[in-house]
Amino acid sequence: MTLPGQLNPSPRLLLGPGPSDVHPRVLTVMATPLLGHLDPQFLVIMNETQEMLRQALQTRNALTFPVSATGMGGMETCMVNLLEPGDKIVVCVGGFFCKRQVEVAGRTGAQVTVLETPWGDVFDLDRIREVLTKVRPKVLSIVQAETSTGAWQPLEQLGKLCHEFDTLLLVDAVTSLGCVPVDVDGWEIDAVYSCTQKGLGCPPGLAPVSFSPRAVEAIAKRKTPVQSWYFDVAMVQKYWSDDRFYHHTAPITMIYALREGLRLFLEEGLQARWDRHLRNHRALKAGLLALGLEYSAVEGHQLPQLNAVKIPPTVDDLTVRKMLLTDFGIEIGGGLGDFKGKVWRIGLMGHNSRPKVVLTVLAALEQCLRAAGYEAPAGAGVAAAIKTYAN
Amino acid sequence: MTLPGQLNPSPRLLLGPGPSDVHPRVLTVMATPLLGHLDPQFLVIMNETQEMLRQALQTRNALTFPVSATGMGGMETCMVNLLEPGDKIVVCVGGFFCKRQVEVAGRTGAQVTVLETPWGDVFDLDRIREVLTKVRPKVLSIVQAETSTGAWQPLEQLGKLCHEFDTLLLVDAVTSLGCVPVDVDGWEIDAVYSCTQKGLGCPPGLAPVSFSPRAVEAIAKRKTPVQSWYFDVAMVQKYWSDDRFYHHTAPITMIYALREGLRLFLEEGLQARWDRHLRNHRALKAGLLALGLEYSAVEGHQLPQLNAVKIPPTVDDLTVRKMLLTDFGIEIGGGLGDFKGKVWRIGLMGHNSRPKVVLTVLAALEQCLRAAGYEAPAGAGVAAAIKTYAN
Repeated sequence: MTLPGQLNPSPRLLLGPGPSDVHPRVLTVMATPLLGHLDPQFLVIMNETQEMLRQALQTRNALTFPVSATGMGGMETCMVNLLEPGDKIVVCVGGFFCKRQVEVAGRTGAQVTVLETPWGDVFDLDRIREVLTKVRPKVLSIVQAETSTGAWQPLEQLGKLCHEFDTLLLVDAVTSLGCVPVDVDGWEIDAVYSCTQKGLGCPPGLAPVSFSPRAVEAIAKRKTPVQSWYFDVAMVQKYWSDDRFYHHTAPITMIYALREGLRLFLEEGLQARWDRHLRNHRALKAGLLALGLEYSAVEGHQLPQLNAVKIPPTVDDLTVRKMLLTDFGIEIGGGLGDFKGKVWRIGLMGHNSRPKVVLTVLAALEQCLRAAGYEAPAGAGVAAAIKTYAN
Repeated sequence: MTLPGQLNPSPRLLLGPGPSDVHPRVLTVMATPLLGHLDPQFLVIMNETQEMLRQALQTRNALTFPVSATGMGGMETCMVNLLEPGDKIVVCVGGFFCKRQVEVAGRTGAQVTVLETPWGDVFDLDRIREVLTKVRPKVLSIVQAETSTGAWQPLEQLGKLCHEFDTLLLVDAVTSLGCVPVDVDGWEIDAVYSCTQKGLGCPPGLAPVSFSPRAVEAIAKRKTPVQSWYFDVAMVQKYWSDDRFYHHTAPITMIYALREGLRLFLEEGLQARWDRHLRNHRALKAGLLALGLEYSAVEGHQLPQLNAVKIPPTVDDLTVRKMLLTDFGIEIGGGLGDFKGKVWRIGLMGHNSRPKVVLTVLAALEQCLRAAGYEAPAGAGVAAAIKTYAN
């Protein structure tokens, strides 16, 4: 075969559910030559990355590090370390990624109880108390930012509630970290996993995780070995601690990237970053509503970083998304699972949460909606966003 | 805390067992902005990468793709898909990484039989025939390039032998791909895993794997689900095939890197690349012998890309390696397991297999050996290498 040519992708504005655009400073560090994975300088870089990750997650958990895999590898890491055959877990399911938790938990041999809510809705504490009382599980798992529906699950009181029942709280923060608060210690979260390619503005390839002392104790009490060697945190932590025991070769360039992404996060400040995401979300939301679109997540629980809106019944999903991609280089997300063909997901994550992006996507979307036969009020989206910024 | 400063690692020449230096062209593509993981342009890039990977592995196997994890994730992928509880596997152990196979295989619930050889030696077909006759395993696994000893296991006849017993042949090609021939179809290998950070001149972060039709059939016949969701090839292949079924977000930048690393490999040509590795190895070997050092792998089975030599008894391991790193920016590898403190491992992999590197490391090593009290014949290493290149 003829060899493929030089890499030359078209410029994109990534406004789907992730990956999001990588911050230019992160792209730059990725061209840095490697250090060895046991080089003293690299060990410093690892420590710095872990410490910044703790700050980003608002935790003092010693066992905090990036798993050498993408976000789903983080989910598996948490499940296979916390669960062994016969253990009980309750999974709160209100979207596609909660369903994933059911699948992954099931493969550990644990008994999985599913607590359901309609897609787009969130769970209240009473329902969770009820299921905890009934099942008394070892672990309760929940998704903070459900990427398939755009619903924002409140977590403030949940850890405390779980601990009344001696249950560990496992949180999916894949789409939340870097966009909205994730207060691991304050909310008494016992295990959390996230990713690099959304709120942190890095490429996909690592899954930050953190385990509370309570979770570490539970892992130490296991009767069987962790079924995965690669994701066994008791082994991996020996490399990410002062032992520096060789387990596997860390993805060095990805750690360079995460370090820079975390530096950007902390330079900006946690509160400032969350405020920025809210501000740009409000402008985008005003614009989307002015175009006549409706959110699919319930009012009061809509994620600033992932705006899931119902596709108007007369409009063809693919026509609009294809035109956005080819004419504007803008990627937005389609629906997953129950929402396939029914929902668009517009992400404003990390670096992409800024006014230029909001106004651009509203203008482009209006043009594509018109081309698809949907008569949006002319210029209404952009106008509403500008007005919101001005307030 | 004060934020860590801008990333600014010292320049290194990475001559350990891996990671090896990334080719400058690969570093450059890593700064390329992302495409979405379902972008039509990215799907083309995936196809190109898979097709080049097949050429590099000399296979037509449809199920050929890079696992989104480092090399050890590739090992786990092969083990958990090929094995289920009660299956039998024979693992050929002559070094640290074969031992890893025993650990990882054991976690699947398979019955593991270990066939041992002294570290630094290789296995002959008669011993393997004997164990196959006795055990009749589902899988036999072996390491082609044992990174801990520098031993080069011949594989030419092994697949055929395994198939006489209806046994699947699993090969660790982590340290071989891109340096010495890996002829998956010609040698009837059923499953193989490798990495990106050695012979392919990319950063660590992906584990190329390939499964023969025979292996795919065995996986389809499993009675139990694969214990790992993340490494379940039946699911992952739906993303890496025309279905493009979403499984997890691919590490896009790493795939850019692998694509460029494979382009470099195929541009050079397979045979030319293997010849280059041999030529530079011969020069390095002549130099190391002239300095009075001995190889730890048996004669006739020494890897060109990984030169493991015994540390002279009067010389302190760390003194020399530390001086090489601080005074010359050169990293070589220490020993692992049984060879800890006894062996140095000097890698000439991918981009680093070139005369400039050979002469540099020989000159620097001589100076460090002298500083450690070892009287190497003056200039003998460099002189022997130059003479070898001239022949």
